[in-house]
Amino acid sequence: MNQRFEVQVVRPGLHDITERVAEVVRASGVTDGLCTVFVQHTSASVVITEGADPAVRKDLEAWSERIAPEGDGLYEHEEEGPDDMPSHIRAAMVGSSVAVPVMEGRLALGTWQGIFLWEHRRFRSTRKIVVHVG
Amino acid sequence: MNQRFEVQVVRPGLHDITERVAEVVRASGVTDGLCTVFVQHTSASVVITEGADPAVRKDLEAWSERIAPEGDGLYEHEEEGPDDMPSHIRAAMVGSSVAVPVMEGRLALGTWQGIFLWEHRRFRSTRKIVVHVG
Amino acid sequence: MNQRFEVQVVRPGLHDITERVAEVVRASGVTDGLCTVFVQHTSASVVITEGADPAVRKDLEAWSERIAPEGDGLYEHEEEGPDDMPSHIRAAMVGSSVAVPVMEGRLALGTWQGIFLWEHRRFRSTRKIVVHVG
Repeated sequence: MNQRFEVQVVRPGLHDITERVAEVVRASGVTDGLCTVFVQHTSASVVITEGADPAVRKDLEAWSERIAPEGDGLYEHEEEGPDDMPSHIRAAMVGSSVAVPVMEGRLALGTWQGIFLWEHRRFRSTRKIVVHVG
Repeated sequence: MNQRFEVQVVRPGLHDITERVAEVVRASGVTDGLCTVFVQHTSASVVITEGADPAVRKDLEAWSERIAPEGDGLYEHEEEGPDDMPSHIRAAMVGSSVAVPVMEGRLALGTWQGIFLWEHRRFRSTRKIVVHVG
Repeated sequence: MNQRFEVQVVRPGLHDITERVAEVVRASGVTDGLCTVFVQHTSASVVITEGADPAVRKDLEAWSERIAPEGDGLYEHEEEGPDDMPSHIRAAMVGSSVAVPVMEGRLALGTWQGIFLWEHRRFRSTRKIVVHVG
């Protein structure tokens, strides 16, 4: 089954959605399977990373700004602002989905793993997530 | 079910395969599920990105050439040409598959999302794609 | 079904787990489906790349050290050592899972593709992998 939910985003960076995904898994009643989390946008990613120390998310964001910087003369696609093409690049690099096994009715995440919506753009928006549990 | 198809490639860069994947989904008869698109090569990727403006694909290609450039003295694996190792790197970074939920019998892509075969090498070839719908 | 196994790791870089994943697929009895390989850690990835020439793995490792280097002043998260934050970055970039179609009871990998656990940290450890076949 697929379940959609929305995330209100006010700034770039990683937003923890682990609990919302876990809720969908619980509601699905699936005990042994696979959960896939998909973002329906080309300027945001879904990623799994360390969820305990907020500095990890800050460092990931800083690194992404260095690896695909704004306004460095490389991009032709600039109509939608200087942060648009870097956002598409970061989204393509990180990916639009993650998959996590479901065991004993729960997401089989490792101790330090969390699931995050990674917003790459610098404006307020509503991002749509689709969770598949099968 | 799994369905294989081939893509004729004549140049590096992103090739739109959204419609071919959508065809497989329609033929599968699956109304609520998950579609996974996999490329059987180590020098090409499958990626989801903005499909409307061709400049996005051009900029992605230019960025990938900068991030993993040819002939910069870092690589030991060079027997198959200067574009071979950069292609393996870009393929590992971007990934060999994407997953997209299927809802109401259709790929649940966002408005701007398309599915692309990203060819990293500079020669003509036939790339094999496997689409799983379940 | 999901099956867990462990990999003993003594150094950073890519460790071939293709045969261990293939074993799980054979044991599952699934003839037509999808296999997902997931790593339960935030400093290691699962990746598909060229499995024939060990120089490819060496070059991938060298490139990852360049793209997210240690101790360059960018990172705030440093309590667990200089290789910790670069490892989280490489893991987020490469990803924590891969998906491979299963056809005729076997992993539908291309001729040159292998499945690898990519260890990003510089210490001995035991990494947990979960394989889903459905």
